[in-house]
Amino acid sequence: MKKVVNDQNAFLEESLAGILEAYPEYLQCSDLDTRAIFRAGTPDKDKVSVITGGGFGHLPLFLGYVGDGLCDGVAVGNIFSTPSASTVYLVTKALPVQKGVLYIIGNYLGDLMNFEMAAERATADKIESKIVIISDDVASAPRGEWRNRRGISGLVFAYKIAGAAAKKRYTLRETACLVEKANENMATFGVAFTSCQLPGANLPVFSIGEDEMELGVGIHGERGVKRVKMMSSHEISEMAVQMLTEDLNLSEGDQTAVLINGLGATSREEQHILFHDVSQCLRSRGVILKRSYLGEYATCLEMSGVSISLLKLDPELLMLLSEPAYSPFISFHGIR
Amino acid sequence: MKKVVNDQNAFLEESLAGILEAYPEYLQCSDLDTRAIFRAGTPDKDKVSVITGGGFGHLPLFLGYVGDGLCDGVAVGNIFSTPSASTVYLVTKALPVQKGVLYIIGNYLGDLMNFEMAAERATADKIESKIVIISDDVASAPRGEWRNRRGISGLVFAYKIAGAAAKKRYTLRETACLVEKANENMATFGVAFTSCQLPGANLPVFSIGEDEMELGVGIHGERGVKRVKMMSSHEISEMAVQMLTEDLNLSEGDQTAVLINGLGATSREEQHILFHDVSQCLRSRGVILKRSYLGEYATCLEMSGVSISLLKLDPELLMLLSEPAYSPFISFHGIR
Repeated sequence: MKKVVNDQNAFLEESLAGILEAYPEYLQCSDLDTRAIFRAGTPDKDKVSVITGGGFGHLPLFLGYVGDGLCDGVAVGNIFSTPSASTVYLVTKALPVQKGVLYIIGNYLGDLMNFEMAAERATADKIESKIVIISDDVASAPRGEWRNRRGISGLVFAYKIAGAAAKKRYTLRETACLVEKANENMATFGVAFTSCQLPGANLPVFSIGEDEMELGVGIHGERGVKRVKMMSSHEISEMAVQMLTEDLNLSEGDQTAVLINGLGATSREEQHILFHDVSQCLRSRGVILKRSYLGEYATCLEMSGVSISLLKLDPELLMLLSEPAYSPFISFHGIR
Repeated sequence: MKKVVNDQNAFLEESLAGILEAYPEYLQCSDLDTRAIFRAGTPDKDKVSVITGGGFGHLPLFLGYVGDGLCDGVAVGNIFSTPSASTVYLVTKALPVQKGVLYIIGNYLGDLMNFEMAAERATADKIESKIVIISDDVASAPRGEWRNRRGISGLVFAYKIAGAAAKKRYTLRETACLVEKANENMATFGVAFTSCQLPGANLPVFSIGEDEMELGVGIHGERGVKRVKMMSSHEISEMAVQMLTEDLNLSEGDQTAVLINGLGATSREEQHILFHDVSQCLRSRGVILKRSYLGEYATCLEMSGVSISLLKLDPELLMLLSEPAYSPFISFHGIR
């Protein structure tokens, strides 16, 4: 797979340098570690600082969610790899900590280990912190074990809600509880049509036939639950909506937000075809769609595929989703 | 190439239905023609109405630029095809016309013909209008014949500037002159690494080897000026910046805006590697980069490739670029 690169081994460094150069008004990095990135400008000391982190190669995830009404800082790992505890710690130290720090991460063992180590160092510095782990991928474990699920594009809902709550002066405990509530009420299902190739690798992450698709794929190209013949948009929607509404126990009259996420190469034209079918499937079950988000929110390099996320809403979650937010990579228009 | 579709022949209709369903607060269509789309809500009658149009398959171009501080309406054509004059006319009649109508289109014969026909019908209705044709693609004609060039991602600068000017109560004549000025001062160069496939077609638009790239490709996959071996990001940047700065006669101290546009499958990570090189190439020539835009602004379905646009700035163009603007597909954060 062809990439715009100079040295495959410098993929991350050169891309990161470009990002820091492109948005100096919005992003800056630690003097000690260019992978410890946080919001530029005068920070707001009266709010909880929201920090995330994860591997590189998923833009706008994770780095792209550092912005107004979203996250305040991010620890960037190697491609598809966990950031180091020291990077997480440096981000923490660069931000206001008077109101505490909320770490939001996807459910991966390495991320959890390193964020816990950083949180321990923060505690030693008398910084109060909490970690909330997002586990939205229905394909990786049944509902009974939902806390063992991987975190994928549901992270976007978590950032949006945490960022809005922090701006509204929710306390650390309140913000953490809220993101936990969001996590309990979200579910995501992903499908992939083509693989992606890590910079420097000789082969794609997996191989797949011209008439096949992978069900339940993760954002690192992890194998899903099943390899099947290519399905239509109707069939993908019906399968996903059935799975997600069952998982969330949605019934007639329930309000939801939907996120149709392109994994990299799937066009916005196709995303809207899928949305058209997903909204019909929800309507046929009496589920009410209050907010719709379409675009590339969490990618897997140049993979072709989509994920569909549902968030069951209550008035508080809806209100926080509706606040405006902005980063150089992603924008949420406020809805009054 | 795999697509998320139901019926390849209903690609446009289903995608358009999804778009209209997803953003009812922002977009609405004519009762007579779902392809005649304009801003929802109470229109501003005291400003010039800005209208564009073009083929489908380039999202966010063209439809995605209907928004606040951008275009007011759009006529949607078939995939990669000119919209009909009647669709353009219906968009015109749906918008306030007291201050006149500015049509902004890319330089394609079919578009020009149909917009001219619509403008004639508007004139018969006593609606004053002007057409500005964007011709930014350096690969399609030399500077001496620059008005014969194709219009590609430079359209984005045109919309941003026209939208901001119209909001600031520029007259029709002033807004048209301004967009003409922007067009004279912009240039774009595109490269493609893979082709795309029209829905329903049996083959991609062109075929290309695993170690090849196409220089000077258009947004419909039109052949460019040359087929070469895959180049590095440095090489692409140096070639493009040389061509664009020569074309625009840029010299030390000149101020510019750059747009790095992904054609579909090229990741944001790669776009930022390219940006890193482009900004170095500009710096080495003493050209000042005042504004940077990276992302998917004008695509060619699932094509892998990028285009690089430069706009030479004067204080007026910079001021108008810096105004905030928003559509469901694209967002420009205001810079004070």
